[in-house]
Amino acid sequence: MRKFIDSIGEFGLIKRFRDRIQNDPSVFKGSGDDCAVLKYTRNKYHLFTCDMLVEGVDFRQGENPYLIGRKALAVSLSDIAACGGIPRHCLVSLAIPKKTTIKFADELFRGIQLLAREYKINLVGGDLSSARQLIIDISVLGEVEKKYLVLRSGAKPDDLIFVSGSVGGSILGKHLKFRPRIKEARFLVRNFRINSMIDISDGLVQDLGHILEESKAGAVIYKDLIPVSRQARGLADALYMGEDYELIFTLPRKEAKRLSVNKVFNFKVIGEIISGQRNLRLIDNRGREKIIRSKGFRHF
Amino acid sequence: MRKFIDSIGEFGLIKRFRDRIQNDPSVFKGSGDDCAVLKYTRNKYHLFTCDMLVEGVDFRQGENPYLIGRKALAVSLSDIAACGGIPRHCLVSLAIPKKTTIKFADELFRGIQLLAREYKINLVGGDLSSARQLIIDISVLGEVEKKYLVLRSGAKPDDLIFVSGSVGGSILGKHLKFRPRIKEARFLVRNFRINSMIDISDGLVQDLGHILEESKAGAVIYKDLIPVSRQARGLADALYMGEDYELIFTLPRKEAKRLSVNKVFNFKVIGEIISGQRNLRLIDNRGREKIIRSKGFRHF
Repeated sequence: MRKFIDSIGEFGLIKRFRDRIQNDPSVFKGSGDDCAVLKYTRNKYHLFTCDMLVEGVDFRQGENPYLIGRKALAVSLSDIAACGGIPRHCLVSLAIPKKTTIKFADELFRGIQLLAREYKINLVGGDLSSARQLIIDISVLGEVEKKYLVLRSGAKPDDLIFVSGSVGGSILGKHLKFRPRIKEARFLVRNFRINSMIDISDGLVQDLGHILEESKAGAVIYKDLIPVSRQARGLADALYMGEDYELIFTLPRKEAKRLSVNKVFNFKVIGEIISGQRNLRLIDNRGREKIIRSKGFRHF
Repeated sequence: MRKFIDSIGEFGLIKRFRDRIQNDPSVFKGSGDDCAVLKYTRNKYHLFTCDMLVEGVDFRQGENPYLIGRKALAVSLSDIAACGGIPRHCLVSLAIPKKTTIKFADELFRGIQLLAREYKINLVGGDLSSARQLIIDISVLGEVEKKYLVLRSGAKPDDLIFVSGSVGGSILGKHLKFRPRIKEARFLVRNFRINSMIDISDGLVQDLGHILEESKAGAVIYKDLIPVSRQARGLADALYMGEDYELIFTLPRKEAKRLSVNKVFNFKVIGEIISGQRNLRLIDNRGREKIIRSKGFRHF
């Protein structure tokens, strides 16, 4: 019987690939986090990541090309932010339908280029091909001081869980204009002991779930603490809708107390990491508890 | 009037993008060579490159998935070879139709993985999405000793021009199985002063043309010296057909003499670099000379 990839799903296929990989000791952390972490200098690691945007999946046909280009780079920068690092160089692979106007291509490139300039990233090359759908894949090489590196796997019981901004409904517009949280992440890693971090690409519950899985921990979050975006149609959008690109991070209580004094950024506590069972519990305003399952965007 | 990208062509569009890029001094060589060359350590550069394969362009639907995966990595390794370097890490972005069998996906991945293992390359992550066409984009991070770096731009008058193997007709089968010329390139840069190098992806004439353009030089090549593959249907295939992934390189006459003693590899001299006019002349066995124009594969 022929079995198709949608029968094991996106994450099933990734796991299948990942289990077969063997790397040498120059890889500090391979597949399975927001970025690959590679040995670089005595005090720094390289961060290496890529993200592919596909027409009809990550943006609609006829969408503003400037914003498509911008988003294509922004999603990779968000991965660098989630590891606490600084993006340095990028390569752009573009598969583009032949019947694309020069104006569209110009605007697409301008979106990439202006964001690259804003974040001082070098645009060092790429590849160009034709395809039926527009597809943009950008790979970014960055760096992070060893002492500032944050992974998904470091969450500890009693850590408080924060998000860097409001979530939900991003797909209705914000996903094309979001600011990658580089500045926020750098502020955090330079001033606080951040135990774990991830960016929300597939939805708050699913991405927090990745932290729990990698950290072998559970979590409690409070319904009334979730900062729901104005665009969200309700709590479900905030919990399960992807494309927010806000950061989820956890840090020890004592550190969190220091963070609460900060007025520059809009960090919100949403709950805490707990030991024991590796599930995620949502507590409502009457104290009722519900175990919630990972449910978020999947490509197949 | 709406103008489409095929009216300026692939190289026109690339030039349009490239002209707008401004990079900082950590970029030794940006877009416009086989790899980007980035500052790394005192003695080494980073090489950074990506290549995107598209179903229906770079391989046919129904082609052997193991060989598709293998080729997807091999073309990027060929770029690292062309700069004289060693590949170290790669990221794999995959856009895959939902109705792909698990077996196909497994084989595709196995093709990438076994080639990575053969060349001791770490597979450190990637991205997975769904699309109507199968698209694979692999970016590779490598390194090269500063003294061994070779670019397209270093060809000098009186350099002899070599190819690393026979050319033409690759698209009839060899393009899926070619061996990236890492070993050959490393042998060359460690033992000889190689002034310029490029890999043949778009055709001998077009890719030698890139060396001439970047080096501001001309060249003479001899019809009877071109090593035409058995699969090629004639000289035209050898001159204009892409996908050979052999290396073209140039080196001073004296160095070439030393190289001629070598019996391990199958390097063949095909002509020489000349000063003055930046054109490419083909001389036939009766001494007749013809200026040949760049003509090779273009995506649009």
